[in-house]
Amino acid sequence: MRSVTSTRLAASDRPAQELLRSSALLSHLSARARDEVVAATAIEHVPARTMLLREGEPPQWIHLVLEGLVRLFTTAGNRQITLTILRAPTLVPAEMIDLQAPAPVSACTLRRAHLGRIAIADATRLLLREREFAGLAQRQLAAHWRDLLCEVKSLRAHTSFQRLVAWILAMHRLGSGPIDLPYDKSVLAARLGMAPETLSRDFARLSSLGVSVKGRRLDIADPRLLETLAGFAGASLPPVP
Amino acid sequence: MRSVTSTRLAASDRPAQELLRSSALLSHLSARARDEVVAATAIEHVPARTMLLREGEPPQWIHLVLEGLVRLFTTAGNRQITLTILRAPTLVPAEMIDLQAPAPVSACTLRRAHLGRIAIADATRLLLREREFAGLAQRQLAAHWRDLLCEVKSLRAHTSFQRLVAWILAMHRLGSGPIDLPYDKSVLAARLGMAPETLSRDFARLSSLGVSVKGRRLDIADPRLLETLAGFAGASLPPVP
Repeated sequence: MRSVTSTRLAASDRPAQELLRSSALLSHLSARARDEVVAATAIEHVPARTMLLREGEPPQWIHLVLEGLVRLFTTAGNRQITLTILRAPTLVPAEMIDLQAPAPVSACTLRRAHLGRIAIADATRLLLREREFAGLAQRQLAAHWRDLLCEVKSLRAHTSFQRLVAWILAMHRLGSGPIDLPYDKSVLAARLGMAPETLSRDFARLSSLGVSVKGRRLDIADPRLLETLAGFAGASLPPVP
Repeated sequence: MRSVTSTRLAASDRPAQELLRSSALLSHLSARARDEVVAATAIEHVPARTMLLREGEPPQWIHLVLEGLVRLFTTAGNRQITLTILRAPTLVPAEMIDLQAPAPVSACTLRRAHLGRIAIADATRLLLREREFAGLAQRQLAAHWRDLLCEVKSLRAHTSFQRLVAWILAMHRLGSGPIDLPYDKSVLAARLGMAPETLSRDFARLSSLGVSVKGRRLDIADPRLLETLAGFAGASLPPVP
């Protein structure tokens, strides 16, 4: 996998600056605080599978993920195990207190992503000096904590088939019409904690419930049928994608 | 289960005030900030199985858990499913941003506990006014986030037998000599995500590795043997108890 390397945002790079300034991530900040963050941030597009954090190593950057998905994972032997997937806009790492501590997990982009990066020394200063930025970090962390609790709930309380149905229902609620898988089926299987073969079998089982799968596109004939059969209340749907 | 009800700490209740003031939870605060927190807090002993949070309902109190263990759980049908166990000193709920939001999970004490409680309206004011208290909340949340990531790592990467061995090794590292289980075997099984019968079987399997179980006491003849067999590095041991 690649690592991120780049330089501070050039003052002349107006489009990138504007993109960051108008990001939903910074929407709660005052114009003044936003200027502070923009001044400290380097922006770039990075390809899929760019490493943002390595488990066991202290982070080198704070990443402001403006667009894209980030997979948190751990390595056991030769296997990579997906723990959860964070959605833009978000901050990585989520826990911004002791930035000298080794990262508890690894993180990489799942597809082409748009990132802002702040060097750790700058981020530490910014967190101390800029109360609004510290507040942003805290809101993000609280949201991640709640999402991760939901993932654990789902892992413990539901079968892998139920988790798949819940994921499809959550995706369905997000948009309208057919669902385009946002990543490979192998990533979806890993995220749901099942083997790829189990996912294929579960997709086959879903065809009798009106869900048709063609490549990475899912069509759902009757979401209510799915909901009833899986026994899911809306509140327990997982964060997606 | 019981619910917490009580009144603000009486100014005359010096021993309780002193206990809170000297708690490790507040050790990073200045004397001034500590006074602010103490003034807003009611303190009491509560029995095991006292409900602190109900899933789906907004929290009524912030709890400063000074002594004891708190189980986070969800309910699926008639089953209660343990998600993780938080150790004192800690704050419950951990995510202190949107205190009007419904709690994502339920929380109850696992054994007799010593609690400080702050009414939500007071806690909200305190978080706004007292920067050091907000910092404390943020450090706690970051620690919980890291612990929960470790729990998910362990759930996904290890078998239930490996999780049991890791838990025993972590408990062994915490103290010296034999390990006294801090809660029922049924709670340990739930926490490790296994059926009680599986736990019994795994304990039986451990006897050939020099681990003897009598009631709630475990003796470990050779921790290094255990470590080698389970293939655990120190870094991946879970938070305990």
